[in-house]
Amino acid sequence: MAGVTAGMALSVDEVAKHASKQDCWVIIHGKAYDVTEFMPEHPGGSAIIMKYAGRDATTAFDPIHPPNTLDEYLKKDKHKGTVDMVGVKVEEAELSPEDKVRQDRLQDKPPLAECLSLHDFETVARETMTQAAWAYYSSGSDDEITMRENHLAYQRMWFRPRVMRDVTNVDFSCKMLGTKVSIPIYITATALGKLGHPDGEKNLTWAAAKHDVIQMIPTLASYSFDDIRGAAVDSQTQWMQLYVNKDRAITEKIVKKAEAAGIKGLFITVDAPQLGRREKDMRMKFADTGSNVQQGDGSVDKSQGAARAISSFIDPGLSWKDIPWFKSITKMPLILKGVQCWEDAVMAAEAGCQGVVLSNHGGRQLDFARSGIEILVEVMDELNKRGLNTPKFEVYIDGGVRRAGDVLKAICLGAKGVGIGRPFLYAYSAYGVEGVNRALQLLKDEMEMNMRLIGARTIEELSPEMIDTSALRMRSVGGSDDRLFAQNYEGLRAREFAKPQPRSKL
Amino acid sequence: MAGVTAGMALSVDEVAKHASKQDCWVIIHGKAYDVTEFMPEHPGGSAIIMKYAGRDATTAFDPIHPPNTLDEYLKKDKHKGTVDMVGVKVEEAELSPEDKVRQDRLQDKPPLAECLSLHDFETVARETMTQAAWAYYSSGSDDEITMRENHLAYQRMWFRPRVMRDVTNVDFSCKMLGTKVSIPIYITATALGKLGHPDGEKNLTWAAAKHDVIQMIPTLASYSFDDIRGAAVDSQTQWMQLYVNKDRAITEKIVKKAEAAGIKGLFITVDAPQLGRREKDMRMKFADTGSNVQQGDGSVDKSQGAARAISSFIDPGLSWKDIPWFKSITKMPLILKGVQCWEDAVMAAEAGCQGVVLSNHGGRQLDFARSGIEILVEVMDELNKRGLNTPKFEVYIDGGVRRAGDVLKAICLGAKGVGIGRPFLYAYSAYGVEGVNRALQLLKDEMEMNMRLIGARTIEELSPEMIDTSALRMRSVGGSDDRLFAQNYEGLRAREFAKPQPRSKL
Amino acid sequence: MAGVTAGMALSVDEVAKHASKQDCWVIIHGKAYDVTEFMPEHPGGSAIIMKYAGRDATTAFDPIHPPNTLDEYLKKDKHKGTVDMVGVKVEEAELSPEDKVRQDRLQDKPPLAECLSLHDFETVARETMTQAAWAYYSSGSDDEITMRENHLAYQRMWFRPRVMRDVTNVDFSCKMLGTKVSIPIYITATALGKLGHPDGEKNLTWAAAKHDVIQMIPTLASYSFDDIRGAAVDSQTQWMQLYVNKDRAITEKIVKKAEAAGIKGLFITVDAPQLGRREKDMRMKFADTGSNVQQGDGSVDKSQGAARAISSFIDPGLSWKDIPWFKSITKMPLILKGVQCWEDAVMAAEAGCQGVVLSNHGGRQLDFARSGIEILVEVMDELNKRGLNTPKFEVYIDGGVRRAGDVLKAICLGAKGVGIGRPFLYAYSAYGVEGVNRALQLLKDEMEMNMRLIGARTIEELSPEMIDTSALRMRSVGGSDDRLFAQNYEGLRAREFAKPQPRSKL
Amino acid sequence: MAGVTAGMALSVDEVAKHASKQDCWVIIHGKAYDVTEFMPEHPGGSAIIMKYAGRDATTAFDPIHPPNTLDEYLKKDKHKGTVDMVGVKVEEAELSPEDKVRQDRLQDKPPLAECLSLHDFETVARETMTQAAWAYYSSGSDDEITMRENHLAYQRMWFRPRVMRDVTNVDFSCKMLGTKVSIPIYITATALGKLGHPDGEKNLTWAAAKHDVIQMIPTLASYSFDDIRGAAVDSQTQWMQLYVNKDRAITEKIVKKAEAAGIKGLFITVDAPQLGRREKDMRMKFADTGSNVQQGDGSVDKSQGAARAISSFIDPGLSWKDIPWFKSITKMPLILKGVQCWEDAVMAAEAGCQGVVLSNHGGRQLDFARSGIEILVEVMDELNKRGLNTPKFEVYIDGGVRRAGDVLKAICLGAKGVGIGRPFLYAYSAYGVEGVNRALQLLKDEMEMNMRLIGARTIEELSPEMIDTSALRMRSVGGSDDRLFAQNYEGLRAREFAKPQPRSKL
Repeated sequence: MAGVTAGMALSVDEVAKHASKQDCWVIIHGKAYDVTEFMPEHPGGSAIIMKYAGRDATTAFDPIHPPNTLDEYLKKDKHKGTVDMVGVKVEEAELSPEDKVRQDRLQDKPPLAECLSLHDFETVARETMTQAAWAYYSSGSDDEITMRENHLAYQRMWFRPRVMRDVTNVDFSCKMLGTKVSIPIYITATALGKLGHPDGEKNLTWAAAKHDVIQMIPTLASYSFDDIRGAAVDSQTQWMQLYVNKDRAITEKIVKKAEAAGIKGLFITVDAPQLGRREKDMRMKFADTGSNVQQGDGSVDKSQGAARAISSFIDPGLSWKDIPWFKSITKMPLILKGVQCWEDAVMAAEAGCQGVVLSNHGGRQLDFARSGIEILVEVMDELNKRGLNTPKFEVYIDGGVRRAGDVLKAICLGAKGVGIGRPFLYAYSAYGVEGVNRALQLLKDEMEMNMRLIGARTIEELSPEMIDTSALRMRSVGGSDDRLFAQNYEGLRAREFAKPQPRSKL
Repeated sequence: MAGVTAGMALSVDEVAKHASKQDCWVIIHGKAYDVTEFMPEHPGGSAIIMKYAGRDATTAFDPIHPPNTLDEYLKKDKHKGTVDMVGVKVEEAELSPEDKVRQDRLQDKPPLAECLSLHDFETVARETMTQAAWAYYSSGSDDEITMRENHLAYQRMWFRPRVMRDVTNVDFSCKMLGTKVSIPIYITATALGKLGHPDGEKNLTWAAAKHDVIQMIPTLASYSFDDIRGAAVDSQTQWMQLYVNKDRAITEKIVKKAEAAGIKGLFITVDAPQLGRREKDMRMKFADTGSNVQQGDGSVDKSQGAARAISSFIDPGLSWKDIPWFKSITKMPLILKGVQCWEDAVMAAEAGCQGVVLSNHGGRQLDFARSGIEILVEVMDELNKRGLNTPKFEVYIDGGVRRAGDVLKAICLGAKGVGIGRPFLYAYSAYGVEGVNRALQLLKDEMEMNMRLIGARTIEELSPEMIDTSALRMRSVGGSDDRLFAQNYEGLRAREFAKPQPRSKL
Repeated sequence: MAGVTAGMALSVDEVAKHASKQDCWVIIHGKAYDVTEFMPEHPGGSAIIMKYAGRDATTAFDPIHPPNTLDEYLKKDKHKGTVDMVGVKVEEAELSPEDKVRQDRLQDKPPLAECLSLHDFETVARETMTQAAWAYYSSGSDDEITMRENHLAYQRMWFRPRVMRDVTNVDFSCKMLGTKVSIPIYITATALGKLGHPDGEKNLTWAAAKHDVIQMIPTLASYSFDDIRGAAVDSQTQWMQLYVNKDRAITEKIVKKAEAAGIKGLFITVDAPQLGRREKDMRMKFADTGSNVQQGDGSVDKSQGAARAISSFIDPGLSWKDIPWFKSITKMPLILKGVQCWEDAVMAAEAGCQGVVLSNHGGRQLDFARSGIEILVEVMDELNKRGLNTPKFEVYIDGGVRRAGDVLKAICLGAKGVGIGRPFLYAYSAYGVEGVNRALQLLKDEMEMNMRLIGARTIEELSPEMIDTSALRMRSVGGSDDRLFAQNYEGLRAREFAKPQPRSKL
Repeated sequence: MAGVTAGMALSVDEVAKHASKQDCWVIIHGKAYDVTEFMPEHPGGSAIIMKYAGRDATTAFDPIHPPNTLDEYLKKDKHKGTVDMVGVKVEEAELSPEDKVRQDRLQDKPPLAECLSLHDFETVARETMTQAAWAYYSSGSDDEITMRENHLAYQRMWFRPRVMRDVTNVDFSCKMLGTKVSIPIYITATALGKLGHPDGEKNLTWAAAKHDVIQMIPTLASYSFDDIRGAAVDSQTQWMQLYVNKDRAITEKIVKKAEAAGIKGLFITVDAPQLGRREKDMRMKFADTGSNVQQGDGSVDKSQGAARAISSFIDPGLSWKDIPWFKSITKMPLILKGVQCWEDAVMAAEAGCQGVVLSNHGGRQLDFARSGIEILVEVMDELNKRGLNTPKFEVYIDGGVRRAGDVLKAICLGAKGVGIGRPFLYAYSAYGVEGVNRALQLLKDEMEMNMRLIGARTIEELSPEMIDTSALRMRSVGGSDDRLFAQNYEGLRAREFAKPQPRSKL
């Protein structure tokens, strides 16, 4: 048949024959790939691949993945060769009526200057992003208790500001792993950046350069490492977030490439031996790919669940024993990202790591993991007790930050810096790089004001005494109210007008 | 008159004469029974019996009771003989317009694969069950504070996960009373299983077999003990829940039959000397049977209330003095189900019981009883202090579990296993045995992930240090807000769009 | 002119001349009274009197007051004599369209047998009482925080039930001030009983007799002391609540009359040196009497406020120095009603009182006074420390009780008895005496069950160890939530049906 | 050209040429001013000035500023001379349709006598004020957590009232900085008083005189110091609130003028080295002046943010070193307003100040600053420990007070007096001076009652033992509820009527 001769292009008909779970090919940018074995390892699930089995998947693939992904991660023998695409109609990305409404709404979005806080970007993003992107970015694991707790925990920390200090000049620049930055904030790693905006993670690179902060490059970015590193200006410091591959050779290649490219810190994710279940995202995927109860093909099926678990992308076997090996292959500082109790922070310090990130993966992994800011208090206590709170060991936290006041609380309590993720995704999803720039500027404005108001001129002047942590563990739940009592109680009401009218909204 | 000759069938007209509270017969499966004396002891109340006084009650009886119930529990002289049913129109179960809607809705129910958590089964069940079944299963006592607290208490327990442990292989199998099970969960006893699904408790038996967990057979099942035991596969372990009858001879018969049938544990209910008042269920029964204010015939009337109390089904006289007697009639392990403070757990251990279930009967008995998970902490403390936390004494808990994370918390804190009841009822009410299978699979998937995320490979590696119980007693109430202040406060609102539109729902 | 001759009846025209604040007469049951001096002392405010200035006020007066009120409280020279009412049209009580609707609704009210808890009576009463009555009964002072706290405080107390005790027979009868009662509950004093039902306080007397509980007769009853005492059966114990009059001679007369009539306890109100402001009630009165901004005639005006304060009905000068005098005029046990901290409870015991009622006047006096149940804990502690917790000193509490479980908590913690007020008012407002009877029966049913479930056979077996008071002071407030965060968060939703329909209501 | 001759009036055309950011003149009351340099320092932002660039700004200027503001604060060379306004049409203040509605609604407002608490004034003000005024008065910084906490903190303080004390006569007069006042309340300084009412701050002066309380005159008043001081009666004590100018000569002039005018206390604001961001107010200003995303001209822009920071009106360089200088230029008592932890209160006492105000600027500066009432407890503790709680050092607090009960709590805990701000603004915005008079009278009525009910005859008898502060730090947050659980739970509902109808509103 035409198209199977060696060296000659495959025909689309030939590819179309491989459209089953047992034998599945897809076409990406005019090349065919056999993804049969890969499917169960796909972090996004197998259903979405099966939707394009035997067909051109480029329009679905492009918005999320770096172009070279399959060339890099699939073995050579799975590369089935180029496909003769002449006459093949490119499948247009389907625009649902809902997405249409959403795109129109982009016209109505508030001018950037009227975004007054990080919250505002989230509001705009929520109304204008595709549902798939919103579901992926905004979701957390299980009941999303930890995801919310990450923010709410900051609300239990109160300031003890000092007055009558000359705060004419405030300077909140500081150093992180040796790099001078303008504010103790870094842009943390988040996956699939193109879901929100075509420039994806590069929006973050550009804004980081402009504002003199560090960007952490994610392993699961939509752009390739080279693209993101390439978007940086010469002097710009970037860090690398690492999912450790079961095949340590792949990991070694990634690490050495990063070091060679001038990356200044290696942040090894330790809170994700298995990717968390995020139900909002799963429901979205059902809506997207359809589901088939006869085949029992839900994403949480045993097969699939296990699949996710044994993904070679993320090795559940990663352990303390790997630390010496990492030290043997790189001189970059090693930081463990996802430490969640003081015991592991102490072990990291003793193992010779340069730091930890107290993090629960943005509430996307273990629900009811505690917030970084809560853990920070016990970690600093125990490091201090053991003499491990030294310049050689830096403690970072991430999760739930929305205000410079949140940052200030973390720094007062001993963090070197605070990672922010989702808010910047929302900022560029709504407004591109200018959104991120404004978000960072807002944080700096808030920071400058808050430094003055708390009575500190420099980062060094921030201290634990400036925070009242007495309500630290008062994580409240609610829900156990007396319904009959509440229903019978006729609450006091303000004196009403003859003709009340709804207030206009500010 | 025809029909009263000894040995001959009774006529329906004859039966119809016995239709008063003072003289009440009913027909079940073509046999007449005199239930006059039994009525006040009927756990479901006397009103529902009176509705069928002098008539055929089979269609109302069958959906709830084992067929042989009356033969077993009524004395021989109350068996009035067979009834000539020729020409008698079988009373169709009335299908209310509402139930009609509900049955239609069954067509719209989500595919099973889209049930992502135990919560989803409850949602589907709530929308598709009959109101009577929903009211019976979902209700708790008084203000249902304890019923909700059972779940909410888990929300006050937070994880302290460990990282950098090789969690490639996790194994959460364990032993309960000597039986190896696949996960530290058992299916606890709940009454009236046929209310939700015609296969009733057998759904649970089948799923327990498939998933290698233990089912506890309830005394008040809709199927008979033989039916449920018969549904089990040979190797399958089952336990028996026991309401102790005032007539110890009946109890002895039940216990010996269970032991002979290979039951591996006897769980004596100790938290129900009297059946709790559940107002939702009572309201439902009013709707069902009508009520008559002139007669003062509410279920809580003195007569009826007392009736329930002195039901011979459940002996309020059960006491520690009965333990030696139980030990004398059976070799099965004795476990007290419904212990609610450490003092009684210690007494159970000292009395030679093999274990306790820390339980408040699913919030259906004493409102403001504390949750099992809260009691567990004090019980393990005191057992440890006294050297009673040994392999010979096992502590179980039940109530409020919805996630594998909840199970994990209980196991970390010292429980041997966790009983789950309502969620499985909802699962089969909505989807039959496949619902229970999927519910168990979801729990296993969550369990596997959570074990990895908490950093434990085996049940033995779970420990109290992995739980932060600092908010254990922060049972919150709320309700005392300042209404005028709240009403005057104009909350911050996100920046609004020119034309906001409601988001579609994930 | 006709009508002014001594001994002759006054004409209505003559009375009509006295219709100003400076000179105000009213006609009650055909007699004229000069109430000019009395007006500022009227507990219900002067505005309502002015509405009837110079006119027949009988129809407004009768629903609230004992017929002989004015004869008793007004000096003889204010009795202006009989009025010739021939030809005078009796002013009909105006029935507002709203009250009309309300009366019609009485037809729709649920059958008494379907009232399953004290909450249900409140619901029915709320929908069927006049607005004036609802506003008066249901209101509390200031922001009604204390009024709600009275109930909510019980929600912070949890049970530690004991199991495996023979609870076949439970007996919760006990003694209060020497009187045997069937349950440790008494009917506490509340004012203006006829507002809710024409039989007013007599409903309570009759039900108390039937159920063998004690009624406390209020000073400000709608029926006279003689009427209420007269409604009692011979053997029936009643107590007397006393507002101490500035004129001690009046007080002495009242006390001696009570003792002579066989009253068994004198409860002196000590938490009301001035009547509290209840804004719901005040708004109602504005609606009722109209208000006049020009005259500045609001009830909180300085003049009026002060007036209330110096009302001779309630002497703000009452103090510890009065105790010996009380002891000199009566042998009845003296109990101080309204004690709110342990210091005063100790002083009462040391002053030779027979007891205290820990009460904040149903949340109608000082807002942010603590609940009786909270105070009880510290009071018992301190009495015990000082050896004052003896049979000669009894501690009662009232406020916020809705369930027998609440009663049980108080008794476990050391109270001798619990006063219940509003719920009984609601019960008879909705259903007359039968409502109160059923309310008491419901409490007894709940009590019997709860005694069994907590594992106590007698009142003596109830003990502090049965209550977990660890959340005692966790009075929560709420209201300080992060609005922008909450608004952006898209909560998890249960899986929805294609065609969801609202559930019917149980 | 005509109009530029020295001494001659400018033409409006000439002024119109100066309408850019680089060269901006405005006309106020017929005089032209060059405000180019001033614009960035304008506390209200530059946008509003640019709206009137080159034009007559009088109608916008007058409602907020003292007439002589520009003459006082602008250097002489910026005074460009009088303008020939003949034939110039005065720009009418634009009345939006919404403001029209609002003004009509003033007709419907409740009679003053029906305002029963300070809450009621806020309700009326909210419905009747211009949106700009409401936004300015009612807003707080960031998420307004502190603004609300100021009030909510009082809700965590409970009374321990004493009974049986003769409270016939209560006297709550006291001394503040040597002045006898009728009640321990003062009217604290708030800016821009004319926004709410044409008589602005003078309303407060008049009411303060009538009610014998002290008014603190704000630096940023709408009326000039002379106007406000002039409105006072001879014997009337006033205090002065001071923003310290970078140019200490200006500050010295202000202070000396105040002292000469008989001001009795100098309250130096120490919590505002930079004016807080208040988003409601910012949104309002966007709506008012429009915004221009191209120019990036949002109020939080770097330029503008910095501008606010370096405003010479408020010197961020103010420090403890300035205290001796203040002592050298005035004999008035020096009080630091805005102290927020005990350390600074102690320093103030040691530095020879006569007092502090524990305040967070009404929640308008640093969000998550704690409430004054919470700080008060620790401040009094530490002052007592150090022997600094002497008659020579007085502690005041402000923020969140709405009831006399709040005042009572502060006084019990050791405050000398309590400042109230917003409620009085709302009172006069709604009802002019009579509103403030009634507000003060309501507070006195509440105070008199509460003194009686707590059992204190004089301010001296109020003591810390009368307050239960055990819930002091239980600042609750909420928000972390289990949504799926809550959604599935079918709450108990009161028994419903056949035909329920909404209750009318009291």
